[in-house]
Amino acid sequence: MIRIGIAGYGNLGKGVEAAIRQNPDMELAAVLTRRGPEGIRIRTEGVPVYAMDRAAELKDAIDVMILCGGSATDLPKQTPALASIFNVVDSFDTHAKIPEHFADVDQAAKTAKKVAVISAGWDPGLFSLNRLYAGAILPEGKTYTFWGKGVSQGHSDAIRRIDGVKDARQYTIPVESALEAVRSGKNPDLTTRQKHTRECFVVAEDGADLARIEREIKTMPNYFDEYDTTVHFISEEELLRDHGGIPHGGFVISSGKTGWDRENTHVIEYRLKLDSNPEFTSSVLVACARAAYRMEQEGQSGCKTLFDIPPAYLSPKTGEELRAALL
Amino acid sequence: MIRIGIAGYGNLGKGVEAAIRQNPDMELAAVLTRRGPEGIRIRTEGVPVYAMDRAAELKDAIDVMILCGGSATDLPKQTPALASIFNVVDSFDTHAKIPEHFADVDQAAKTAKKVAVISAGWDPGLFSLNRLYAGAILPEGKTYTFWGKGVSQGHSDAIRRIDGVKDARQYTIPVESALEAVRSGKNPDLTTRQKHTRECFVVAEDGADLARIEREIKTMPNYFDEYDTTVHFISEEELLRDHGGIPHGGFVISSGKTGWDRENTHVIEYRLKLDSNPEFTSSVLVACARAAYRMEQEGQSGCKTLFDIPPAYLSPKTGEELRAALL
Repeated sequence: MIRIGIAGYGNLGKGVEAAIRQNPDMELAAVLTRRGPEGIRIRTEGVPVYAMDRAAELKDAIDVMILCGGSATDLPKQTPALASIFNVVDSFDTHAKIPEHFADVDQAAKTAKKVAVISAGWDPGLFSLNRLYAGAILPEGKTYTFWGKGVSQGHSDAIRRIDGVKDARQYTIPVESALEAVRSGKNPDLTTRQKHTRECFVVAEDGADLARIEREIKTMPNYFDEYDTTVHFISEEELLRDHGGIPHGGFVISSGKTGWDRENTHVIEYRLKLDSNPEFTSSVLVACARAAYRMEQEGQSGCKTLFDIPPAYLSPKTGEELRAALL
Repeated sequence: MIRIGIAGYGNLGKGVEAAIRQNPDMELAAVLTRRGPEGIRIRTEGVPVYAMDRAAELKDAIDVMILCGGSATDLPKQTPALASIFNVVDSFDTHAKIPEHFADVDQAAKTAKKVAVISAGWDPGLFSLNRLYAGAILPEGKTYTFWGKGVSQGHSDAIRRIDGVKDARQYTIPVESALEAVRSGKNPDLTTRQKHTRECFVVAEDGADLARIEREIKTMPNYFDEYDTTVHFISEEELLRDHGGIPHGGFVISSGKTGWDRENTHVIEYRLKLDSNPEFTSSVLVACARAAYRMEQEGQSGCKTLFDIPPAYLSPKTGEELRAALL
């Protein structure tokens, strides 16, 4: 049994807890939290909850710690710190800061002779893998990534900060005609506006100026000004009833040419359609925990991403089983 | 530069030759053929062609030999034989015999301290990878593979063996309603007939009994009897004009549940749409040759499949470049 720890018990941590139940070679050993552990009730019976600063006491009780904090402030500190004690997995997703995070975590993990898998999930994660495989196989090609339809937490938060807004949910939606143009193998040049639209469901405070709110959303720099945005004002009840989920997904579509005269075109399309963004991410984290454990058992150490993990290490099946059943 | 050899100069070998030109870190060093080398004219200038039995003389001139023979009779002998001299890559695709082929090749490659990648291509190959990744991430799920629309060489050959048939081309076509049922996440049970249809374009000899030919096709055991099959009789000119290509592709669609009460459903879809089946397979073989070379340089040996290859090894980019650009 691989003994898993969870550091951070939000949506992602709860998803990891549920995913562990689906993997018979794993068990939940402990949950770490920055909030007071007495205030947290987890779902798995008989598993202790500790304050984050007691992590070192768990050194021998946990094989892999899965970090479920946020990329903005939690993970840049927590991942290197915990990688000096445990094998770890995180879902660090601030694309621009991945090289820096990698370097920090690599140093900590190498010193401790542990394996740390960072940026696991679906983007970064499975989408990245598909960009890599497609690019390696079709060097004269182009890869496009589309996100959605799905809830963007960052954009929803941005709307909530507008004066007069009580709550909001923002969906990112890929433009169907852009998907079709890419699928055709024509390698079109697409602007930001041509790739995605944004749809907002907003609960306004009583008496708020709806026209102003809509204008502030649609013109918000970086978040909305480069997109065609639709704003719907709805009641709080409607928001809870119709927009309570956290779906997401998207497409990675690559096309490239082969042949002596580049006469043949190939299209590779990878699509995710996820009912729950955090739970799917959690499931990727758990598979990566298995790989981290195996790589450390083999004597490897340092920071890894899905790019470095032999796919077989993610599966509980043996090489023989995989070749017989899936190859 | 990675020096590549090609063993077998049919469609696949020609595709490898073209793909090498698209990869600046590789060069074609030699072509081996079982036919008389004087009868073969390759496209790359200044590259020698040798008889297959002179392979051992090339030991120090070639880093990776890519085997482009057939799975029925060529590869079971050639891959172990050449793996005792070179790093090798093949596209062995007789699913049921993969364990046996793996064992033979593994022994030869380990003895010679070489790396041998077998069963590279898209199925087995990229489709297998997607079955593995999806199964590891969504353990409570189900994966479906659909092939087509594309030309099946085996089924085309089977029609050509019928008395009165001059030439034929058979397309395997996935049933759209079955794809939709799988995409919905309902995990339907589908019979062979419900998943694919078969469409045949047949050139009959003058005066042949068309009704008999059609009947023999539709009732042919294993090949057609379990499918809904359509037969079109066309002229030789039409066959050459409209059915000269070798397109193929297909879908791997997985769906699975997550959540404490399995309340959320996720769908992962991977699709290939290929103008040229052999050229795309060749491009996968060439990327695997890069991985084989690197793994051998690291001191690894033995038989591998795409399941065992860290994805980054397929790309000419460094780890830093991949993390910065694709993660």
